[in-house]
Amino acid sequence: MPFPADATVSEVGEFPLIEGLREVFAQGEQVLVGPGDDAAVLRIRNGHVVVSTDLLVEGRHFRREWASAADIGHRAAAANLSDVNAMGGRAHSLTIAMAAPRDLAAQWALDLARGFAEECGLVGASVVGGDLTSADQLMIAVTVLGACLQSPVLRSGAEPGDVLALCGRQGWAAGGLAVLGRGFRSPRVLVEAYRRPEPPYDAGRIAAEAGATSMIDISDGLLAEARHLAEESGVAVDVRRDAFEIPEPLQAVAAATGADPLSFILGGGDDHALLATFPTPGVPDGWSVIGSVAAGSGVTVDGGEYDGPTGWTHF
Amino acid sequence: MPFPADATVSEVGEFPLIEGLREVFAQGEQVLVGPGDDAAVLRIRNGHVVVSTDLLVEGRHFRREWASAADIGHRAAAANLSDVNAMGGRAHSLTIAMAAPRDLAAQWALDLARGFAEECGLVGASVVGGDLTSADQLMIAVTVLGACLQSPVLRSGAEPGDVLALCGRQGWAAGGLAVLGRGFRSPRVLVEAYRRPEPPYDAGRIAAEAGATSMIDISDGLLAEARHLAEESGVAVDVRRDAFEIPEPLQAVAAATGADPLSFILGGGDDHALLATFPTPGVPDGWSVIGSVAAGSGVTVDGGEYDGPTGWTHF
Repeated sequence: MPFPADATVSEVGEFPLIEGLREVFAQGEQVLVGPGDDAAVLRIRNGHVVVSTDLLVEGRHFRREWASAADIGHRAAAANLSDVNAMGGRAHSLTIAMAAPRDLAAQWALDLARGFAEECGLVGASVVGGDLTSADQLMIAVTVLGACLQSPVLRSGAEPGDVLALCGRQGWAAGGLAVLGRGFRSPRVLVEAYRRPEPPYDAGRIAAEAGATSMIDISDGLLAEARHLAEESGVAVDVRRDAFEIPEPLQAVAAATGADPLSFILGGGDDHALLATFPTPGVPDGWSVIGSVAAGSGVTVDGGEYDGPTGWTHF
Repeated sequence: MPFPADATVSEVGEFPLIEGLREVFAQGEQVLVGPGDDAAVLRIRNGHVVVSTDLLVEGRHFRREWASAADIGHRAAAANLSDVNAMGGRAHSLTIAMAAPRDLAAQWALDLARGFAEECGLVGASVVGGDLTSADQLMIAVTVLGACLQSPVLRSGAEPGDVLALCGRQGWAAGGLAVLGRGFRSPRVLVEAYRRPEPPYDAGRIAAEAGATSMIDISDGLLAEARHLAEESGVAVDVRRDAFEIPEPLQAVAAATGADPLSFILGGGDDHALLATFPTPGVPDGWSVIGSVAAGSGVTVDGGEYDGPTGWTHF
């Protein structure tokens, strides 16, 4: 149901808007009771549920001038689907709550919902509930539910002697963000990588089946997430610079901005690549060895301290 | 772990704050993987999960000057636990995400978490995950997971001939809100009812076992929620004025403000009382008949239109 192009959420009103949003969200076969009651009810087949939640704030996690509503929907879904991916599982159901300024275009909210639903559709997950309220600042709260086919892969299982491996594009979104932050729109492939990350949604399950000892999704920066793995596992992690080929568009942005091109890869988040450790040098297809695990603590690059940006903090 | 009394969340920093929050949240026996990984993992015993989400915004759903951090934690939890109650179920797990201004006192965040955990403890539920980020406006996003022992009770099952029944204090929180909105602090019992609602957490399950045909939690106003029941069930609902005894403190506030005392009961939310329909005049203990269900549509009071406030809208 399209709304008049210039109608705001407060002009359309809460219930017509919810009605319009509900039509966007197709329900999967796990849904016994979908949106519209006090709660949704989901069939859970294998005795457990994986659950994670994220809160995205305008100006902090996204900007309406840097991405379309549909893009922001894709990104919000990707960030959450990726958390289940990082456990070695797959998402089946999500809730989305939005706090919106009263003058937000109703069509913007619908477009966000469409992008969100599209991204969820990539893994066969459906949006089973939500909430809508007004606020001065636009915020999107997402909770994802999923399941693993085998034991979940935690952050805490890395062992000395393991290899550290990466799956997925890494640094592209950070390159795109650097471009947008300077008021540019190209290289387009980086801007698009920021607007619509392409997390490797099968990689988590494949890593789990291949015996990954620990795993994490890179949302706050590769080295920052490697540090979480190292801390939770009680090990030291070393990342090798020469493990990375710098893709041409990142080289171009680095040259234009005077940045170290590797800083996008080592410090960037938002691509939702996966980082995992494996007990043997043989990592599954699609994964690349980028470092090693040893006894000790902390994260090094080529055996030494890294003095570039390592990631994102929330305060 | 107490923080220095005047330290802000940004001074304490994200990770120490998360560490402090994590200590507040005891984990239940359903928790296979608790907070701190990419996602939590929960054991699900009976093949389904009930899920609901709520987003609470400062200035809209709560005010720091009207309630303590712990109170706001209690209220945020109650609003969500009550959604599972209204399905005839019981919550077992929740996630909580907070967007906080950088100058928020870290102790305030801890106190909110404590109040939230305490309320969850009333039904044996635990906080299994969360998120923390900065924002200009304080917001709290909650998702609750729970289970029913029998089929969930929906909004859509009311039948002509059913009785409409209520369980729990109703109108007290609205009375408290009216008092606070005028800058007063008494009658204290109403202000406390607003600050710490006492939802009847066993009533949903009892109603389900007694054969309730439909049920809803009253968060946006009794008549507004009765309208949802009527619409979803395709029936008409009539509420009887003489079914309500006006409690003395509500009479006092009504007298002081010139309001119709019944308007707090018919229009008020936030107590999280339950409204349900039953197929016979015999309703379970703790429930009171307040009206009836007939063929048709819409909600009436004593057979006629009601011209007072019927509830709360979000835009």
